[in-house]
Amino acid sequence: MAYLNENYLKLQAGYLFPEIARRVRDFCEANPEAARGLIRCGIGDVTEPLPRAVIDAMKRAVDELGNRETFRGYGPEQGYEFLRSDQNKVAVPDPVYPVYVDTNVMAGHSGAAKSDGSYEGIVYLPCTAENRFVPEPPKEHVDLVYLCFPNNPTGAVASREQLSRWVNYAREHESLLLFDAAYEAYISEREIPHSIFEIPGARECAVELRSFSKNGGFTGIRCGFTVMPKSVVGRADSRKKLPLHPLWHRRWSTKANSVSYPVQRGAEALYSSEGRQQVRALIEHYMGNAKILRDACAKIDMKVFGGINAPYIWVKTPAGLTSWQTFDRMLHDLNVVITPGSGFGAQGEGYFRISAFNSRQNAEEVARRVQSLS
Amino acid sequence: MAYLNENYLKLQAGYLFPEIARRVRDFCEANPEAARGLIRCGIGDVTEPLPRAVIDAMKRAVDELGNRETFRGYGPEQGYEFLRSDQNKVAVPDPVYPVYVDTNVMAGHSGAAKSDGSYEGIVYLPCTAENRFVPEPPKEHVDLVYLCFPNNPTGAVASREQLSRWVNYAREHESLLLFDAAYEAYISEREIPHSIFEIPGARECAVELRSFSKNGGFTGIRCGFTVMPKSVVGRADSRKKLPLHPLWHRRWSTKANSVSYPVQRGAEALYSSEGRQQVRALIEHYMGNAKILRDACAKIDMKVFGGINAPYIWVKTPAGLTSWQTFDRMLHDLNVVITPGSGFGAQGEGYFRISAFNSRQNAEEVARRVQSLS
Repeated sequence: MAYLNENYLKLQAGYLFPEIARRVRDFCEANPEAARGLIRCGIGDVTEPLPRAVIDAMKRAVDELGNRETFRGYGPEQGYEFLRSDQNKVAVPDPVYPVYVDTNVMAGHSGAAKSDGSYEGIVYLPCTAENRFVPEPPKEHVDLVYLCFPNNPTGAVASREQLSRWVNYAREHESLLLFDAAYEAYISEREIPHSIFEIPGARECAVELRSFSKNGGFTGIRCGFTVMPKSVVGRADSRKKLPLHPLWHRRWSTKANSVSYPVQRGAEALYSSEGRQQVRALIEHYMGNAKILRDACAKIDMKVFGGINAPYIWVKTPAGLTSWQTFDRMLHDLNVVITPGSGFGAQGEGYFRISAFNSRQNAEEVARRVQSLS
Repeated sequence: MAYLNENYLKLQAGYLFPEIARRVRDFCEANPEAARGLIRCGIGDVTEPLPRAVIDAMKRAVDELGNRETFRGYGPEQGYEFLRSDQNKVAVPDPVYPVYVDTNVMAGHSGAAKSDGSYEGIVYLPCTAENRFVPEPPKEHVDLVYLCFPNNPTGAVASREQLSRWVNYAREHESLLLFDAAYEAYISEREIPHSIFEIPGARECAVELRSFSKNGGFTGIRCGFTVMPKSVVGRADSRKKLPLHPLWHRRWSTKANSVSYPVQRGAEALYSSEGRQQVRALIEHYMGNAKILRDACAKIDMKVFGGINAPYIWVKTPAGLTSWQTFDRMLHDLNVVITPGSGFGAQGEGYFRISAFNSRQNAEEVARRVQSLS
């Protein structure tokens, strides 16, 4: 009989976003009236239409596929995901985008789940108000470190000095940094690095994950890429160091034919001068929402983080309420869906995330409703 | 230091299609004159434009993404790939589409490579002229079996009786059949099953892989799906049998957001009545090529298989020539690129594959050049 991948059985029951969806669905069924005014600030999904340059480029690409002379079939390969090995000791920030943890559990990089929802064998890096949600490197040795700045869910950014300490740690410990830069386009402060490769030495120890989801609004279009420097190495069982790039290349050449042709043409259009302007306008729109939401929470004396270099506002829950209690109260009293911080990890307890991905009208309405709490 | 996935180091150096590309490139550089008349019948990549219904549907979908009212971000999840576990004993036909083997090697389902290019620990099912390229179930026990009918590369099809023997084997051995039906649209003979699920009992032991690459011409668009019956189970370490569907669902819900929205709209259009007609016309086009190529080879007394229910013609090499020798001779003498059968496995030695995915003009020209060999 076919054997299961046992690692899946270690996974905790509910993935965060389906659980949110379930509670919202139950509420809407029970309260059809309130459901009509419900505003969703939970999932970080974009709401604004695609940049015009993308629409035009994708339609031109689709037209090409309708003509024999310009038709293209299989494209060149290469794209996104990461190497797995059971031996790797993995460190993740806490709170963290839950997919980092769940995919490592699936790949067998963890032990069993503990009662607090964390997993044996994974090193959690606490991100707290005290460290402004930017963890320092751990005392112990780890092989793989996930970092995400600007951060989902806290909206925090790391300074050049903080990232330099991580690069130094990685070079000393021969660790690999997996740097998720999905939100780099939202950085507004000049001194904040946009890429791990701005830090000297990073090309020897870091891989950067990039996405068009949040700059070009590609959450439904699906396109991203990985920057894998040829100078990054990993260790084989023989203790020999080998470059990762050829393995990575082989993986993608074998398993994938990359991304749909019109999608790649659409992504290319984001780099044109009009595309850049249109992306800039989208980001200004969402960051305008972030300011409105941040200010509204601050006005009623809620403790607010993020929302300056990232489209997420990270808010302390009202005294005495857990993240899920706050979620339920905001759903039932304000008809606003937020994301409970505890869904991102144990250190997220006592916080909630407001996503700024919304229409201006909805952001303003959420701000009004939040202020009615005062 | 980050540990490598050691399994990648077991992989034999060259993936088939890049090796073909290398030899073709070298030839074209050395023979720029001949390169101008080169015809590629190697990779099974489609050449005809997408069905009109798809073009229209994708452009409408792209337009929707340009308007705030109809914009869509993240879609629902679920899509394609397969569970892995180091304990599974895997059987693959030989010859076989090389990705089945290479991905199992990457996932650690094999031992080291042997001198003939096969891997320790994998059960190879010989497909030969004697069994008309349809293997019988093995005597020994295996957990996972890959089957592909209509077959790539041999163009063979399995009868209802042959597939029933596989379903019976799978139910007796509690094995899982992974049935690749990518070419089902090319079946022309009425009695040949189009799906493993036409066989009674298959819903307890089979998963079917479907693709739009070869019916809708989606090789560059990228869309497929997996039929995973809820009645299919796998074994956990505890020996308990558990349904695979929830694990499969969890995997896709966590790791993917499915396929690009306009692509899904394009795929949907293949099911409209005009889409079906357009697909039928595409298949008639390619199968017209298959007949031309088959007849040309038969006329000069080459031994020919396939090409009746599949877009591939599987041809015995001229006496005394290996697959790669035939490849080189056809490249240099006829300026025609075919695929050497040995690239698909040891049993493919002494054969080559001609792909019918081409323009009519090219298929006719290849037929003329092949006949000049007589």
